[in-house]
Amino acid sequence: MPASIASARPRVVIIGCGFGGLFAARRLAHAPVDVTVVDRTNHHLFQPLLYQVATAGLSAPSIAAPIRHVLARQRNTTVLMAEAIDIDTRGRAVVLEDGQRLAYDFLILAPGATHSYFGHPEWAEHAPGLKTLADAFEIRRRVLLAYEHAEREPDPQARAPWLTQIVIGAGATGVEMAGTMAEIARQTLRREFRRFDSKSARVILLEGGPRVLPAYPSDLSTKAQRQLERIGVTVRLNSRVTHVDASGVVVDGERIEARTVVWAAGVQASPLGAALARSNDVPLDRAGRVIVTPELTAPGLPEVYVIGDLAAAVSDGQPVPGVSPAAKQMGRHAAENILRALRGEPPRPFRYRDYGTLATIGRRAAVAQIFGVKLWGYPAWLTWLFAHVYFLIGFRNRLVVLVDWAWAYWTFQRFARVVIEGIRRG
Amino acid sequence: MPASIASARPRVVIIGCGFGGLFAARRLAHAPVDVTVVDRTNHHLFQPLLYQVATAGLSAPSIAAPIRHVLARQRNTTVLMAEAIDIDTRGRAVVLEDGQRLAYDFLILAPGATHSYFGHPEWAEHAPGLKTLADAFEIRRRVLLAYEHAEREPDPQARAPWLTQIVIGAGATGVEMAGTMAEIARQTLRREFRRFDSKSARVILLEGGPRVLPAYPSDLSTKAQRQLERIGVTVRLNSRVTHVDASGVVVDGERIEARTVVWAAGVQASPLGAALARSNDVPLDRAGRVIVTPELTAPGLPEVYVIGDLAAAVSDGQPVPGVSPAAKQMGRHAAENILRALRGEPPRPFRYRDYGTLATIGRRAAVAQIFGVKLWGYPAWLTWLFAHVYFLIGFRNRLVVLVDWAWAYWTFQRFARVVIEGIRRG
Repeated sequence: MPASIASARPRVVIIGCGFGGLFAARRLAHAPVDVTVVDRTNHHLFQPLLYQVATAGLSAPSIAAPIRHVLARQRNTTVLMAEAIDIDTRGRAVVLEDGQRLAYDFLILAPGATHSYFGHPEWAEHAPGLKTLADAFEIRRRVLLAYEHAEREPDPQARAPWLTQIVIGAGATGVEMAGTMAEIARQTLRREFRRFDSKSARVILLEGGPRVLPAYPSDLSTKAQRQLERIGVTVRLNSRVTHVDASGVVVDGERIEARTVVWAAGVQASPLGAALARSNDVPLDRAGRVIVTPELTAPGLPEVYVIGDLAAAVSDGQPVPGVSPAAKQMGRHAAENILRALRGEPPRPFRYRDYGTLATIGRRAAVAQIFGVKLWGYPAWLTWLFAHVYFLIGFRNRLVVLVDWAWAYWTFQRFARVVIEGIRRG
Repeated sequence: MPASIASARPRVVIIGCGFGGLFAARRLAHAPVDVTVVDRTNHHLFQPLLYQVATAGLSAPSIAAPIRHVLARQRNTTVLMAEAIDIDTRGRAVVLEDGQRLAYDFLILAPGATHSYFGHPEWAEHAPGLKTLADAFEIRRRVLLAYEHAEREPDPQARAPWLTQIVIGAGATGVEMAGTMAEIARQTLRREFRRFDSKSARVILLEGGPRVLPAYPSDLSTKAQRQLERIGVTVRLNSRVTHVDASGVVVDGERIEARTVVWAAGVQASPLGAALARSNDVPLDRAGRVIVTPELTAPGLPEVYVIGDLAAAVSDGQPVPGVSPAAKQMGRHAAENILRALRGEPPRPFRYRDYGTLATIGRRAAVAQIFGVKLWGYPAWLTWLFAHVYFLIGFRNRLVVLVDWAWAYWTFQRFARVVIEGIRRG
């Protein structure tokens, strides 16, 4: 049993230590409660820069901080590396993967989301998505080793699929991945291969809808697409992927041979939403998210808060977007509502404050909307750079990430071009 | 076929791009030969700092540089990520793992060594050794997750094995690992756990011989042992390990329950030595190393050089030690002998120049013998620090490694405390 269970203070259990869970935990630092933070991994991940790990621009430790170190000074907080697999809302306990039960008085559910392959789970092994460090390492391995395979392949026709890279989905992650992959081909790997020119590698970005970055104003979508095309990405809009296998995809009936496919198309809420709905009258939306009350609780369960990507929340009549500032704000808000409950005050409804959105495309290329002002190109990229470094957790990370980026900027190099595993036989 | 095969220039194939292979390749940069470098991984590894990756002090990219980037400007050099599995000395070709053959006029064999479990290969899964980045990640995972398991274990008696760490073998790697593991327990993780004091973790260093660092002068061995004991390592000399399993080891008939066991006891040459001996009259020593001629060739095969950890070489009547300066010198020497052969000159015998040896124990603790001068404690540690940063490949690495170390020095923190995988079920 964790230390918290022995005490008489209210027990707050937080499931997941992404932005939502971390900000909730921090808000409770000096509160008269016992907090237990549960996460499957040992680190808080700065997800907005995960694509940089996948594309060898940053090392994993630069964007991941050990949760227990980040929260070490909060003496009321226990950190457990564990996986929550069920919630017993009657018994008020979280069930962990080894059967251990964790009793709570208040629960904050912030487990995040996973990929959705639109009913085709068999595509997952051929087209990894990007949510965890393990995902990023897998994509890095595939992107870099495809070029290694190409260098070993004497037949140009057999080589072509190794030099064709497809990104499915043109949201922020898809745009960032495709832009960086094109830069790797055109800049980073120049002059390093003897049998082919890395600039001949093709990067194709497939989007089901009519424009890239659908969450952005449409003129910024146009600007983003133009920037992508300028650095060599082929953008195909209104494209429907109907098949993915080990050697390529079928899009609008046409087969494209490609050995590297990245999935950035759909997300699906954590199965903990369904676990909650199984034994309660909790409504879920089509993506499996919990349709929360204005106060961010699960309907009928005032002691259970649901935040971040698992929450379908509404603010000012608008759905709250699945971005990190929203998760942070929800985390803080849930913690504050718990503190209000402890003082006997009623919970307050959540209001999302939208400071802006940012997506990067490549070197000196980005689009942004900050406090209603639209930016693109170099100014947007500088804004993106400083915003992301500023929000990185921990001073050391900020410093080293800046050194890495300065280095990459001047040399076009990506220093983390390391694949841990050796070549695989057979 | 690689570009080299099409040309009429002599083809030099180098197997392995550790220190020996890399220095051989570099020496051939402007030579009238076609060089092909073959390595199982995509990176050259700065192995002297690998224990820092295993103990979360450095990220993998800080000590690993993409081979093809390091050699990109050598226009006569092709890099292939591949595994050499056999050598056809009659046909003068290397056989790769996919059956491809790589023809050579000169061959430099520098594949390095692996672990030796003294006839107990079943110990490997319980006691990983430290040769590759994959090894380092596995040890990092085990060291860090043992503490996570301990925090989840309510029973102190069941918790103890998670807080007992054993290092088998007190050569340089064993001493460095044990010293750093003790520092992690005593400094890095202080105040981060709620159910136990990380300082209570035990680190036990087991050595079969009568002293630690057997390759060093005996007074430095004594000094190293004293420094290890001061930072909390239990050193047991003349200890024979007779059994290793998932939950502990048996040493001198006594069972010690320990969930973290690291193997630093024995090395064994690459199987390519045996492959060479199968079809030729090439003598191997007990560790499977090729007993080379004074010129560093395999006896009877004047076009086949064997260097680094695969070579049992003798210089001035003394065996050449298995350290990185020796591998570099052998690599350069083999390349020079090949250039001499191309000029019709006879090969020269190899002479090892010993500039000194260095081993670190922990913060401000090390032993060194440089140009015959013995150092220990803080001066030895400073020497070690600057020597290692100086020899790191690539300016960026040096800078970032220095930042990381300065940070670690002032804060006692180890920034790379990141385990990629989540908790495993069942």
